[in-house]
Amino acid sequence: MNIEEMLKVAISEARTGLEEGGIPIGAALFSDDGTLLGKGHNRRVQDDDPAIHAETDAFRNAGRQTDYRKTVMVTTLSPCWYCSGLVRQFGIGTVIIGENETFKGGEDWLKENGVKVIVADNSECKQLLNQFIEKHPEIWNEDIGVPCECSNDEN
Amino acid sequence: MNIEEMLKVAISEARTGLEEGGIPIGAALFSDDGTLLGKGHNRRVQDDDPAIHAETDAFRNAGRQTDYRKTVMVTTLSPCWYCSGLVRQFGIGTVIIGENETFKGGEDWLKENGVKVIVADNSECKQLLNQFIEKHPEIWNEDIGVPCECSNDEN
Repeated sequence: MNIEEMLKVAISEARTGLEEGGIPIGAALFSDDGTLLGKGHNRRVQDDDPAIHAETDAFRNAGRQTDYRKTVMVTTLSPCWYCSGLVRQFGIGTVIIGENETFKGGEDWLKENGVKVIVADNSECKQLLNQFIEKHPEIWNEDIGVPCECSNDEN
Repeated sequence: MNIEEMLKVAISEARTGLEEGGIPIGAALFSDDGTLLGKGHNRRVQDDDPAIHAETDAFRNAGRQTDYRKTVMVTTLSPCWYCSGLVRQFGIGTVIIGENETFKGGEDWLKENGVKVIVADNSECKQLLNQFIEKHPEIWNEDIGVPCECSNDEN
């Protein structure tokens, strides 16, 4: 599987999230031979669960693994500190990022710590999330930990 | 509530985890007036869920919040990078750590980024986890992302 094919899986997850009324961010974890280990999407709204970001959902759905060094995390959005911490703690080797314009988390920190990071700069990822943020800035702020009184300052 | 009382809640969660056959690490999230918002424990073994560390379980069980700046995360063990990332992303103001001898995660990084960190150096926390690690080094390694071929090198 190439980068585009892997990213398609994450984008499909983001679209599923949107259809469910949730934040359209998707992710998938692959092994180095391209086998899909797990995929998922942000579930804050659907499950009222603030702990499930796209990356943590994909990680959870991949089940218990004993070695993540050769795995690849593909996500539609630059991973926040929470999800960057997940990547670092479990030694996920590669992160493919759909876009990092709407939000940029810990991707530079991951690079500094030996993680291979690839940014696809995908317009579909940007469009999906930006349309959601425009309609629901308060949910987006909640999802990245920006206190609600700042909502009006967000785009 | 003082530090000791808050830590007792986290230790009680760790003990519940142990009784369930899981890794004995517990956590709780409090508001600044001492109200318990959520508590939880590591669920890797019980739920076969690698994404649920004690801190993420407590965070989840606290439900959707819009401002974490005045909250206090109490955990029996120094938070790993995953859980440290959670604290940083959501702006949790204070972290109280039962012990950081058995494992030390991102607590210094959190301090550098403005989080108040208090280490209680609690012997009960150490004893609970060390007894578990002695019996199940492979589960412990899995939980912190240490590949399984290294299991024999762990204490």
